[in-house]
Amino acid sequence: MDSSEFRKAAHSAIDEIIDYHDTIHGRKVVSTVSPGYLRKLLPSGPPEEGEKWNDIQKDIESKIMPGLTHWQSPDFMAFFPSNASYPSILGELYSAAFTAPAFNWLCSPAVTELETVILDWLSRLFNLPPCFYSDGEGGGVIQGSASEAIVTVMVAARERYFKRACEDLDGEAREAKISSLRSRLVALGSDQSHSSTQKAALILGVRYKAIPTTMEDNLSISGEHLIQTLGECEREGLEPFYLTVTLGTTSTCAVDYFQEIQQVLRRDLQPAPEIWIHVDAAYAGAALVCEEYHHLTKSFDAFDSFEMNMHKWLLVNFDAGCLWVKNRNDLTSALSITPSYLRNDFSDSGLVTDYRDWQIPLGRRFRSLKIWFVLRSYGVSGLKSYIRNHIRLGMVFHDMVLSQPDLFEILAPPAFALTVFTVKPATEQETEIPFENGVSHLGAEERKVATGIILEYENRQLQRANAITKRVYEAINAAGEIFLTGCVVKGVYAIRVVSGNENTDEQYLRKAFDILVRTTLEMQSKTEVTYTNGV
Amino acid sequence: MDSSEFRKAAHSAIDEIIDYHDTIHGRKVVSTVSPGYLRKLLPSGPPEEGEKWNDIQKDIESKIMPGLTHWQSPDFMAFFPSNASYPSILGELYSAAFTAPAFNWLCSPAVTELETVILDWLSRLFNLPPCFYSDGEGGGVIQGSASEAIVTVMVAARERYFKRACEDLDGEAREAKISSLRSRLVALGSDQSHSSTQKAALILGVRYKAIPTTMEDNLSISGEHLIQTLGECEREGLEPFYLTVTLGTTSTCAVDYFQEIQQVLRRDLQPAPEIWIHVDAAYAGAALVCEEYHHLTKSFDAFDSFEMNMHKWLLVNFDAGCLWVKNRNDLTSALSITPSYLRNDFSDSGLVTDYRDWQIPLGRRFRSLKIWFVLRSYGVSGLKSYIRNHIRLGMVFHDMVLSQPDLFEILAPPAFALTVFTVKPATEQETEIPFENGVSHLGAEERKVATGIILEYENRQLQRANAITKRVYEAINAAGEIFLTGCVVKGVYAIRVVSGNENTDEQYLRKAFDILVRTTLEMQSKTEVTYTNGV
Repeated sequence: MDSSEFRKAAHSAIDEIIDYHDTIHGRKVVSTVSPGYLRKLLPSGPPEEGEKWNDIQKDIESKIMPGLTHWQSPDFMAFFPSNASYPSILGELYSAAFTAPAFNWLCSPAVTELETVILDWLSRLFNLPPCFYSDGEGGGVIQGSASEAIVTVMVAARERYFKRACEDLDGEAREAKISSLRSRLVALGSDQSHSSTQKAALILGVRYKAIPTTMEDNLSISGEHLIQTLGECEREGLEPFYLTVTLGTTSTCAVDYFQEIQQVLRRDLQPAPEIWIHVDAAYAGAALVCEEYHHLTKSFDAFDSFEMNMHKWLLVNFDAGCLWVKNRNDLTSALSITPSYLRNDFSDSGLVTDYRDWQIPLGRRFRSLKIWFVLRSYGVSGLKSYIRNHIRLGMVFHDMVLSQPDLFEILAPPAFALTVFTVKPATEQETEIPFENGVSHLGAEERKVATGIILEYENRQLQRANAITKRVYEAINAAGEIFLTGCVVKGVYAIRVVSGNENTDEQYLRKAFDILVRTTLEMQSKTEVTYTNGV
Repeated sequence: MDSSEFRKAAHSAIDEIIDYHDTIHGRKVVSTVSPGYLRKLLPSGPPEEGEKWNDIQKDIESKIMPGLTHWQSPDFMAFFPSNASYPSILGELYSAAFTAPAFNWLCSPAVTELETVILDWLSRLFNLPPCFYSDGEGGGVIQGSASEAIVTVMVAARERYFKRACEDLDGEAREAKISSLRSRLVALGSDQSHSSTQKAALILGVRYKAIPTTMEDNLSISGEHLIQTLGECEREGLEPFYLTVTLGTTSTCAVDYFQEIQQVLRRDLQPAPEIWIHVDAAYAGAALVCEEYHHLTKSFDAFDSFEMNMHKWLLVNFDAGCLWVKNRNDLTSALSITPSYLRNDFSDSGLVTDYRDWQIPLGRRFRSLKIWFVLRSYGVSGLKSYIRNHIRLGMVFHDMVLSQPDLFEILAPPAFALTVFTVKPATEQETEIPFENGVSHLGAEERKVATGIILEYENRQLQRANAITKRVYEAINAAGEIFLTGCVVKGVYAIRVVSGNENTDEQYLRKAFDILVRTTLEMQSKTEVTYTNGV
């Protein structure tokens, strides 16, 4: 493909992308292909001779498009959003054209320098405390994803822990101590943390323990539960070295009680070595562009790292995971290896950043370009209104759910454009609520029996609610008009609706709600199948 | 930016990219900016209001371009190539437009299915044995980089090792055994392996040991040295669980002796649990498109995983690291965690692949598109001639180096378009080679003294050669007409020239050689500064 063929091909691709964007609301949001659909449509190997672009491009519409689930469709309300935007696509385009696996500063200084500048811009925009800025001991780096970031900081946490625990040891004594510590290390999260913390622990080969949360605490890690879990670790001879706290959990967008956590883990109270605290704000961190959320970062100077994904809710196409650390030396001293072929005077001088020592892979793409383009195209005020509009839409949807108390129940407070609710089963005409007036007037023996009956009743009610919620959810996703996510929180099956999609507006949320009502009424009228397992 | 603004902006970006491509040979290959250049050119934060694309685009030429090192310039002969191509850029463009963090099959079935098909195409193209095809127990996955792949398979290797070592244990006995094994695990590579194996060991928190290689063995791992290292591990009470073997090492493109390795580690001879053998063919694996290299994969059915980067030498822009495993269950059983919000009927049915369980991150880009476009645009025959041309050019350059035996010495046989050589210091007029006629005619005492003198002389010659080679290398890179890489092999400082760049041809290699000759003559004529450290 020469330059003139490329110009033609690229113009045609741009037209197709614009057409895709402009017609996305008309496409069925979830792909309906069957497993294995594509192999049947493709030859058994690559062609011997090169093909023309026209022939290749045709296959996009005919073979690829049917297999796409359209994350930017306004009917997509599942998981968390994965927004893209035109300026971001342009950034990806230039990044591909300037291809370099820019592992060293010298490999392409602009790749490193724009990244440092942009992450400093963002750190101020998100109201991170100055300890995370690159002009001190901290700094930011762009990685692929929140999970990658967690593995990275967990390695740094482990090495810092060993270093501090063995400060006064060397040689065999040090080895022996590390070996003994290694088998007792435990990474902490909560029972609401994203699975990536557990996966990172698995990758490092350390234990994982989940701090319990309660509905009363809005599913947040509280100081009390943290203390309780730390006590448990002590009794079990475990060494907690790392903790993920979350700003916006996956199931309900809960925010852990940062201030309480900070107080429990205050450096001056905690015996060294300290636990590394990582803030996972993968999705909800985007809301920090708005001043009204700035109070959330108040305790962050007590934490060691913070991650949010520009590629979820801030219009940068996947991938653009932004990680900040308070002490960049924690990363580089854990991850740096410098063979001769990677050395150069600039790196040796210490005047430049070699981001390869801040991450797992060696090479890296020019990902800051697309963030830069998005920040400049939208401006800070544009990003604020973008987020505020989605949060407003979330409240609108929440109110719709509240308006039908006979059909739905809100499970957790609406947060960050996410509404989580359950479906109510049809009222059982034939059964009464047992002991509706309480059991206090009963004698001891009777009370015991009554309590058993009540528990059994409540359990049955929960199972009925779980069953219908799951059935409504599954029916809606199978129909494929809209795409939602189901989740299980404390044994309760719930449906999540996210209104953070770039193309969403009130009419799509109304449509989604109508579908929910219609499907719920259908399911309520059907013979009931009790939901018993599979949660 | 609306659709019509995007059309205009994208057309303008395409023009700029074409112009960049067409004029790349005229640009200075290495950026000459000073550390911190970019921050001075940029405002201290993002704009409050959005800017127009015209204003953003202007900054690419004025602010970004000076900070780029041009990896696709024909003057770039450093590291390994990082080729890009127009079809690949189109793939990246569509991938950005279809953005999805496609962690599950259902998240966008085409992302998973095209990847499986394309990696099957490639596995046949590269003559991998059928055990790596997806229709059996194996299969391929696209990851970001070779280093990421090594971390991934090392985790799988560790878990498989534990599983097999503890087959007959459970509960506390199993825990105790694993804990004891854990502190004695050692990952193996060679002293020529890429640093990523050592880094992966560091991430997992296991030891790393390098198998020695020799110049006589062309810097390859031999059966003998492998046996020797395994013996050492046994004596030291270590548990080798993983080994990286390399097809094309970074310094000299050495190929380990696969058949000898296979024989040493034959499953029926080795006590269980077996060592996981990973083939790192990050760069040179591309040559496997040509039949004349197919004999290299003969022993691969004895190995567990294989990785090559389409983004180095096969025209796919970074990143497109392709990893194949013989048993995909080894990956999924080590890396799978399935919380409720990631469950769906398709995944539960086991009929589909969820690539998130084959890798460290959760989300994934649509990277197979660009490989598909490149395979179809070039065709198999196009890719073969592409690789063969570079290998031929490598031989041409090798012959140039050979033609000046007074100035240069070849360090390792030319391989995969890589030439590695040293610069000869100016002849020392004043000193003679000591004991040029040997020492066998001397008595025992005299021989000892003579040998000492010879060693000292040889060491001084080596230091002089190292010094001038390093100075020639540094002077050339500082001048910035061409970009080379220096490396240290067995204490010898050498220069690497790679002719695998997409825009290279004989005239550029001739130019590079002329610069080498000119710089060498200059350096030979200068007062000699002995090279003593810094290797």
